Amino acid sequence: MIPDGTLMHSRSAHRSLLVVGSVALDDIDGPFGFHRDLLGGSASFIARAASYFTRNVSIVGVVGDDFPQRHLDELTALGVNTSGVERKAGETFHWTGRYAPDLATRTTLETRLGVFAEFQPKIGEASRDAQLVLLGNIDPDLQLDVLTQVRAPVLVAADTMNLWIDIKRPALEKMLAKVHTLMVNDEEARQLAGEHNLRRAAAHILKLGPTSVIIKRGDAGALLFHGGGAFAAPAMPLADVKDPTGAGDSFAGGLMGYLAYAGDLSPSTIRTAMIMGSVMGSFAVEQFSVDGLRDLTRERIQQRFDELAELAHFERARL
Amino acid sequence: MIPDGTLMHSRSAHRSLLVVGSVALDDIDGPFGFHRDLLGGSASFIARAASYFTRNVSIVGVVGDDFPQRHLDELTALGVNTSGVERKAGETFHWTGRYAPDLATRTTLETRLGVFAEFQPKIGEASRDAQLVLLGNIDPDLQLDVLTQVRAPVLVAADTMNLWIDIKRPALEKMLAKVHTLMVNDEEARQLAGEHNLRRAAAHILKLGPTSVIIKRGDAGALLFHGGGAFAAPAMPLADVKDPTGAGDSFAGGLMGYLAYAGDLSPSTIRTAMIMGSVMGSFAVEQFSVDGLRDLTRERIQQRFDELAELAHFERARL
Repeated sequence: MIPDGTLMHSRSAHRSLLVVGSVALDDIDGPFGFHRDLLGGSASFIARAASYFTRNVSIVGVVGDDFPQRHLDELTALGVNTSGVERKAGETFHWTGRYAPDLATRTTLETRLGVFAEFQPKIGEASRDAQLVLLGNIDPDLQLDVLTQVRAPVLVAADTMNLWIDIKRPALEKMLAKVHTLMVNDEEARQLAGEHNLRRAAAHILKLGPTSVIIKRGDAGALLFHGGGAFAAPAMPLADVKDPTGAGDSFAGGLMGYLAYAGDLSPSTIRTAMIMGSVMGSFAVEQFSVDGLRDLTRERIQQRFDELAELAHFERARL
Repeated sequence: MIPDGTLMHSRSAHRSLLVVGSVALDDIDGPFGFHRDLLGGSASFIARAASYFTRNVSIVGVVGDDFPQRHLDELTALGVNTSGVERKAGETFHWTGRYAPDLATRTTLETRLGVFAEFQPKIGEASRDAQLVLLGNIDPDLQLDVLTQVRAPVLVAADTMNLWIDIKRPALEKMLAKVHTLMVNDEEARQLAGEHNLRRAAAHILKLGPTSVIIKRGDAGALLFHGGGAFAAPAMPLADVKDPTGAGDSFAGGLMGYLAYAGDLSPSTIRTAMIMGSVMGSFAVEQFSVDGLRDLTRERIQQRFDELAELAHFERARL
């Protein structure tokens, strides 16, 4: 993310990660039936994926009075600091979507913002010193507001979405000028840059401020572009995919969690972190909601990492 | 392609490669204008891509009396044996297509089979001993006929296309039972298997006979599946793509050409060969027709191979 390979100089073995994003309840229709009130939202996936790598994750979000307390209790049990999740009177952010039979495309049927409409992230005193910050795809004005609250993060990564690219481009561009890394999917990158070719789209985005851009491509893996070059992370070809919701957020959580675990931002560590992102994304899509990220162990994560390494390995040839 | 790692036991350093496929003239419309009478056809791309790796390539095809002799002379100058390209009275196979402005999709405007409608591949005496055989996406009955003419190939790879999956499935399945490797693009794999998920589609295809299947995914790279596992070859993220026509055939030519060059079929060599395929596909799309495969050198091929290796490299992590 920081092309010159700047290292973090903290004495702590595990760096702290602050996640600001949505916490939601999703209704999802698709080839495996209709599922109601599933735990969703970017922060839910990010925090859970990151929790396997570091015990130093805190999340900031908002839920309504319909939100089951057990979801927060589970995150707390995983070591995630959930004190920044406000509970407000009203309904939790609620997304309803339908996946095509092949899971390749999805349609939003309904979005009820509920208490999320008035979300004002308040970063608690302890989290203001977070070294790594991941801004989920919330309103870019809120992302900017978070950046005024944190003190000296070593790495700030941000996501965004089509809605903000459409209606809040000035705020979005202001935000992009202040973050190190933008993490978006391919369609978002194309829309933001007004350019179909991903390498050109990335070059366009880098001119807006970030020193690196990560483009998530679903089952085609992810691409990292920065001033110094590019990296392609493969995706695991999975036979059993149930629910692609949260794949990109799980990728982001695995990536940032591994960076917190590794404690440096060298180019080599960042590449490995992207593979960890791919690993966590692959677990997420095998089950509904965050279920694919439940009950994982370091051993299973390591095993899938090794499978991805084996999938991608080839010998250098000399002609 | 042969999961048990069977080696070829020829004394020759470079194994012989026989290519049977179409030789065509293409009219192509797209964001870079309308281009008429471009050299096209699977065999044209395959043979040219393979010619950089071995001088032991022969092609079998048919052209009409409108086909410029210089295209054949050029291949001959590259060391390709073109004596198996028949010239018949009539028009050369002519394809007209239009690419969308983003080059992501294309529409066939017209197909005139011309002399290709009566194509009957006749394998010359010398080519019947070819060790590697690549069957372009011609009628599966013709692919089967070629297999009765060759003597003891160590590796037979075949391509196919939506037309044959639609109208000649019995012959196609008979052919699949007799080849080692099927090389198709993702949509063809899905259509053939009746299954969107690529891992499942590959498993379905492997049950039809081939010991391996290679799925070409354009700018998402290529996947190899065989009984023993899987390999994912990345694609080079290119800023300048002019004409995707022939990318998959150039991939196949680079792959088979490298296998001929390397002289073995070990799992490691096959992985490296897929990367060489990706390299040759990346050159092909940067120019119209076979122009991206002109004037290459081993040095430039090696350089792009090294770039792909750098693009895909990551360190193994231990959690």
